[in-house]
Amino acid sequence: MKPSTQEPPVAARIRALSNLRHWLSELGLAGFLIPSTDAFISEWTPPGQRRLRHLTGFSGSVGSALILSRGGALFVDGRYQLQALSELVGTDLDTCLDNPAARLSLLSRLPAGARIGFDAWTLSMAARDGWKKVAGEAGAELVAIDDPALIALVAEPGEKPAPVSLAYPEDMAGKTWQAKCSEIAEEMREMRLSAMLVADAEDVSWLLNVRAPDAGTGTEPDEASFVPASPSRALLYADGTVKWFVDAHEPALATRPAFRIMGSSALAAELSEAASRGPVGINAERTPALLADIIAERRMPVFTDIVARFRWRKQPAEQRSAREAHLLDAVALCRFMAWLDSAARPDDLTEAAAARALHAMRSANPAYRGPSMPMMSASGPNGAFPHYVPPAEGGRRLNDHPIFFLDSGGQYLGGTTDNTITMALAPPEPRHVRAHTRIVQGLIALATTHFPAGIAAYRLDTIARLPLWRDGLDFDHSTGHGVGSYLNIHEGPRIGFQTMPRGMAGIERGMILTNEPGYYSSDFGMRLETHMIAVDTEFAGFLKFETISRLPFDPRLIDFALLEAGEMQWLRDYHAQLINDVSPLLDEDTDRWLEAFVRPFLTPDRAA
Amino acid sequence: MKPSTQEPPVAARIRALSNLRHWLSELGLAGFLIPSTDAFISEWTPPGQRRLRHLTGFSGSVGSALILSRGGALFVDGRYQLQALSELVGTDLDTCLDNPAARLSLLSRLPAGARIGFDAWTLSMAARDGWKKVAGEAGAELVAIDDPALIALVAEPGEKPAPVSLAYPEDMAGKTWQAKCSEIAEEMREMRLSAMLVADAEDVSWLLNVRAPDAGTGTEPDEASFVPASPSRALLYADGTVKWFVDAHEPALATRPAFRIMGSSALAAELSEAASRGPVGINAERTPALLADIIAERRMPVFTDIVARFRWRKQPAEQRSAREAHLLDAVALCRFMAWLDSAARPDDLTEAAAARALHAMRSANPAYRGPSMPMMSASGPNGAFPHYVPPAEGGRRLNDHPIFFLDSGGQYLGGTTDNTITMALAPPEPRHVRAHTRIVQGLIALATTHFPAGIAAYRLDTIARLPLWRDGLDFDHSTGHGVGSYLNIHEGPRIGFQTMPRGMAGIERGMILTNEPGYYSSDFGMRLETHMIAVDTEFAGFLKFETISRLPFDPRLIDFALLEAGEMQWLRDYHAQLINDVSPLLDEDTDRWLEAFVRPFLTPDRAA
Repeated sequence: MKPSTQEPPVAARIRALSNLRHWLSELGLAGFLIPSTDAFISEWTPPGQRRLRHLTGFSGSVGSALILSRGGALFVDGRYQLQALSELVGTDLDTCLDNPAARLSLLSRLPAGARIGFDAWTLSMAARDGWKKVAGEAGAELVAIDDPALIALVAEPGEKPAPVSLAYPEDMAGKTWQAKCSEIAEEMREMRLSAMLVADAEDVSWLLNVRAPDAGTGTEPDEASFVPASPSRALLYADGTVKWFVDAHEPALATRPAFRIMGSSALAAELSEAASRGPVGINAERTPALLADIIAERRMPVFTDIVARFRWRKQPAEQRSAREAHLLDAVALCRFMAWLDSAARPDDLTEAAAARALHAMRSANPAYRGPSMPMMSASGPNGAFPHYVPPAEGGRRLNDHPIFFLDSGGQYLGGTTDNTITMALAPPEPRHVRAHTRIVQGLIALATTHFPAGIAAYRLDTIARLPLWRDGLDFDHSTGHGVGSYLNIHEGPRIGFQTMPRGMAGIERGMILTNEPGYYSSDFGMRLETHMIAVDTEFAGFLKFETISRLPFDPRLIDFALLEAGEMQWLRDYHAQLINDVSPLLDEDTDRWLEAFVRPFLTPDRAA
Repeated sequence: MKPSTQEPPVAARIRALSNLRHWLSELGLAGFLIPSTDAFISEWTPPGQRRLRHLTGFSGSVGSALILSRGGALFVDGRYQLQALSELVGTDLDTCLDNPAARLSLLSRLPAGARIGFDAWTLSMAARDGWKKVAGEAGAELVAIDDPALIALVAEPGEKPAPVSLAYPEDMAGKTWQAKCSEIAEEMREMRLSAMLVADAEDVSWLLNVRAPDAGTGTEPDEASFVPASPSRALLYADGTVKWFVDAHEPALATRPAFRIMGSSALAAELSEAASRGPVGINAERTPALLADIIAERRMPVFTDIVARFRWRKQPAEQRSAREAHLLDAVALCRFMAWLDSAARPDDLTEAAAARALHAMRSANPAYRGPSMPMMSASGPNGAFPHYVPPAEGGRRLNDHPIFFLDSGGQYLGGTTDNTITMALAPPEPRHVRAHTRIVQGLIALATTHFPAGIAAYRLDTIARLPLWRDGLDFDHSTGHGVGSYLNIHEGPRIGFQTMPRGMAGIERGMILTNEPGYYSSDFGMRLETHMIAVDTEFAGFLKFETISRLPFDPRLIDFALLEAGEMQWLRDYHAQLINDVSPLLDEDTDRWLEAFVRPFLTPDRAA
């Protein structure tokens, strides 16, 4: 059957699966494993690298499919179960909650000695080892496949050439690449590492002060890759020298002193050579199995996320850029909220159209480079799913329910934002107001806490939940996560109730973290999200947070009588600061709206 | 050298070590491992079973010594490092912080193939496996030794025959032993266990409604075993039948219907027989390696703490007994505090004498069976060590420092208490008041929180710290732990910042937990501790705590201006309830003192 350009997506998927299965039988494979990750083990894969979505229709950010000669399954985490069920329609794949038992159950159906193929570039070493263990228990075998014809069959059409990597300005990075390399090399020597493979594109971008150009983040949400990381890798040696493996870069980078640039194809030989000379460190979660195996042929790699741990602590310049990015984001958010709150809001405005409108308002700013994440634009019942993303066209009409929340963010050159607003677009019910007030109290509790420097992030997770628990409410996601500097919106540490792996990471001075309590009922959902920087307190060894987001809260969703005096004071200070910082940047209409909207916070007699 | 009855303790230890070493060389052993545990893997070993203390002088509750032909080391956790250093004086043993690297470092000094002996009765399977792993890495071998002459050499002189086990009244247990066995058997069938070895004396005592008699807890603190558990073991089968292995019991117990009683020597054969018939469950942390190995000869044991998990959830009758025990304890505590707070307090009163006085006041109550733990009586700088226990005679003079805290508890038939008071015996400094106020606020925060039923205990640990963190203060121990019902003062779950193993246990309705924030400076320490029961809230799926301790707080150590209105209200309600419940039980003088002492909490105009 010749593919038609008009072929509907479901038919295209069925055809792609059928082609893949044909080749599996040719190669004597019982199945093939397709993770959501690409060769950089990315959380957000760029367009053209979305193999899992191409073959199964699943559009969530994390998952993996085991495609058998007949049937198979997509393994996802709890937040994606319902979504996967509906997106897989038309395929013969089941949806399973991902855990070792579910994997074992599927693999156990295969005959003894069955061989499961995978692409060792797109599976991290840690993920490969997880699958290998279960396959072993089931009597099956995991086989790395580099047959180009097969890889072509699982590839998503439309892959673009890798973007040309550019230098990232030192005044935004706050530290030279040489200084970063030499600091990490010092710690490597303490760990007795002779080299470190930096396979995570976010680590490389940070370490070498390089980024993908604007095009890397796309201009339309659906085309976005969300993360302006340079698609390249590096080898850092214990003497502080570095080799950068990249296929396209601006010429000026070649003039950096003592900076070896090589094509990506040179990495294998250099890695093998490094491993023959001494211990090599890798981050097993973010290193393709293929590269880990090259090292392992010589000696066991040493597992460390040392580069990421340096990256998470932001330089003063990075903090400054983040603050500025939040001011720019606040301008777009205020314009958007003012528009939503006005008679100009179309009666048939949908979730998707609202998201597009906010994207357009962000785009009015020349520093905006694209969205930092898919826009979670959710009205009423759709908000029951914390990670709901509306279809490209449509979704629910905002006017059909009073409660609307939108979690979105922007990449601004120098800073990455991710803010969540909740609004009442019609008079809310008391239960909406009550839940939202508890969310606000939870956000304030975390925003104002002091804590021992270096404390494991999971130990702060309970704080934002206490006001919700008071009313028998809770939310089933983490309270916060680290945020990149013009990089991935998600990094470590994670403030969540699961301790491993990023919950164990310590919170240190300079880290930027989100504060995002929410509540999800069966017929509505709401969340607030702000960014905070960990800063010193007057007490040695103790830190606190400084909130750098500048988004107004909706006073119609707050029961002021429930607030403690300290909470009321915080809201007053926060909104006064917002007016002070953002008002000068706003057009006159938006400014007038903002002043009126937040007035209840600034009027002292509203305090209990 | 003939031992003299006048021999000082250090000389006795040196002689015991020397005798042991002589036998080690006879048996070709390079060393011998002495844990703090006895054959019931007890936390508090009874007098006559304290081998580690006998051989090394170390009196802490947890540790293990590896005694080599020359030298060796005692491995302890952080709280005992300083204490061990001073107690080991006169021996040739080092003190080490216990971790695998420290163990490996000592074992690596031995020649390859060195054999280390241990008594497989006194080391749990989990502890043995931990040592075995490190020994393997060091090229040494761990060898179970049953040579009676050698065991006699490590034994502490003065061992008493095991106490006669008695029936525990059903009206206190709240459930028949048959009902408990049949409930657990049901869960065992779901887990496909054919039998469960109940090797933990606390589990057996709870499951079969048996206890040691009063004598088991001693009458003088130094003689106490602290836990009135029956020194026996049981095999529970999946059909709900049970065999009890005990050497001395009151005759009436033999008349229980369908209750097989056998001597402890019969256990090995029965266990082997059970394992040959199907999977046998054990709690690896509380089962001697010797018993685990008997099962493992037939098949791998299944690891589960199912009996303990049932035990931790208290029956309504057990909760009632606990409430009553706290009233009785409050009578003694109030008398004690009134005496300390009066002119009758001797000028030369020491920490040890104060502890003895409280013990005597508790003993005035006929339901008192003895202390539930060593009395941590600490004045001023001694309070810098959270687990400080004064020497049997002496310790610091209370009049030399304003701040005194005392952590102690009683075994009352039916209930186990453990309450900590902090008092100002002279005008306190502002920093004392500030820290104590923060402790009170932390205690109130945990006492008043709502939380999802079944939540992992570690998730509540941060709550009581928040007010301390506000001032840059913290404490380096858990916030709370489960409490037994006329059993061990320490059980699961643990509200601490370490998640494994008891921090992962869920908090469920009916559990009794302590609430014990503190603060330890270099020159003083303070702690408050109350007990709470987890009870329902008006919200489905959410629990809260009900405080059942009735100890007055010292208002001279509280800065009322720092308190929120809700905190002031809690203190008022708590002390009003205390007056209401305890006042009728007090002698006239104590009652008069109590009313005056807590008046600042009850006077509304003290509220901020």
